[in-house]
Amino acid sequence: MRTIKLTIEYDGTHFYGWQIQEKSKRTVQGEFYKAFQKVFKAQPCLIGSGRTDSGVHALGQVAHFKTNSKLPVQKIISALNANLPSDIAVVDAREVNKNFHAQFSAKSKIYRYTILNRSARPALKRQLCYFYPFPLNIKLMQTEAKALVGKHDFSSFRASDPARQEKDSVRTIKKLAISKQGDTITIDIEANGFLYKMVRNIVGTLLEIGSDWLPKGSIKKILAKKSRTAAGKTAATKGLTLIKVKYNHD
Amino acid sequence: MRTIKLTIEYDGTHFYGWQIQEKSKRTVQGEFYKAFQKVFKAQPCLIGSGRTDSGVHALGQVAHFKTNSKLPVQKIISALNANLPSDIAVVDAREVNKNFHAQFSAKSKIYRYTILNRSARPALKRQLCYFYPFPLNIKLMQTEAKALVGKHDFSSFRASDPARQEKDSVRTIKKLAISKQGDTITIDIEANGFLYKMVRNIVGTLLEIGSDWLPKGSIKKILAKKSRTAAGKTAATKGLTLIKVKYNHD
Repeated sequence: MRTIKLTIEYDGTHFYGWQIQEKSKRTVQGEFYKAFQKVFKAQPCLIGSGRTDSGVHALGQVAHFKTNSKLPVQKIISALNANLPSDIAVVDAREVNKNFHAQFSAKSKIYRYTILNRSARPALKRQLCYFYPFPLNIKLMQTEAKALVGKHDFSSFRASDPARQEKDSVRTIKKLAISKQGDTITIDIEANGFLYKMVRNIVGTLLEIGSDWLPKGSIKKILAKKSRTAAGKTAATKGLTLIKVKYNHD
Repeated sequence: MRTIKLTIEYDGTHFYGWQIQEKSKRTVQGEFYKAFQKVFKAQPCLIGSGRTDSGVHALGQVAHFKTNSKLPVQKIISALNANLPSDIAVVDAREVNKNFHAQFSAKSKIYRYTILNRSARPALKRQLCYFYPFPLNIKLMQTEAKALVGKHDFSSFRASDPARQEKDSVRTIKKLAISKQGDTITIDIEANGFLYKMVRNIVGTLLEIGSDWLPKGSIKKILAKKSRTAAGKTAATKGLTLIKVKYNHD
């Protein structure tokens, strides 16, 4: 058996997220199983580094599967791309150690959140950014965001649905960078793992800080409260892209 | 009468270009006339800086119209955006001198052509770039492109359809910059005006040069031949975006 690691790009706009669900719902995993059937005449289990929600995009989602097929990896890429819909693409495929696991071997993930900050709504990249028409104090957002970096209990930034709350809510944010270019604000976050909705809850809170709705020092207080009600709203999925999943072999 | 200058963004994917045609064909201008009817209860003529083809995008198309309406420009922006489809947005509106003409007053235009240069096809930005999977010699493209800058007869780069050929084929390219960031190659061209299909014919020729299908010095020879058959193929529309139209008052 070979273990194949795939790097996957997708436009999340027309998917009910990564994970396969009831048949009527179009998912990235579901489209892969259809392509697997055509390419391998089999449906090996495809394990992603983690789920992404409906509307969330990926430039570097990683997943693995096991196969007896002898197809060279370059042929796996081209055969899958020939059988996947246009909003999914396999960017890379390589054979990895049999112990490789897309989820459990991951060392860190990088997400990017993109905000269009101007008065008029977007047209060209309307599915690739979140439109925020109010003035934003980027410097305050950058200063406040520093309190998020490091090892923290991120309970305040997890999903409010108890069924989707992880038992262990401690994560380590390795980097958090907020930059502005023209009308576009980019928030890059790298962590050893993310709670469900954590990036979007962080972004929603940073937007409230940048809008002067929350006072200086809010992030520290919100973290200390360890309660989802302390933080801001969940930002929309369409601004979110999974950029990269890092592994030891990288 | 007031003269209103609009700056317009659109995703060209689902349009038969800028210019209104038979009713069954969806055009940017056609969508504006529907919005004008709702906002102004009238259909003043909307004159663009130039046509864009089916599939071509715009971040800074400019157009003007004349109206007796007293609506403040900020209200014109919001009212039009509320009545235009999601793939068109008015980014700016301002009252200008009555002699302003979106086409004839234009001093120069900047187009950007975006190429994704990697082996796997794109998914996330598949409508916003042209996928070119073969190796490209960017340095050679940059060197050869210098021959295009300046005042030239661009007959070799005009449309092959005689019905769409301008009488005067002399234009001045003010800037031409080719850059690469990761897998993405960007070609920015500023000229005092463009012949129909000129940018896409230049890009198609530069791709042939970068692929080593044409020898060094080809651009000079192609320009000298003043014949469309001398240049390369027309590059696809979806990689092309009208970035900016410059006027004296800028």
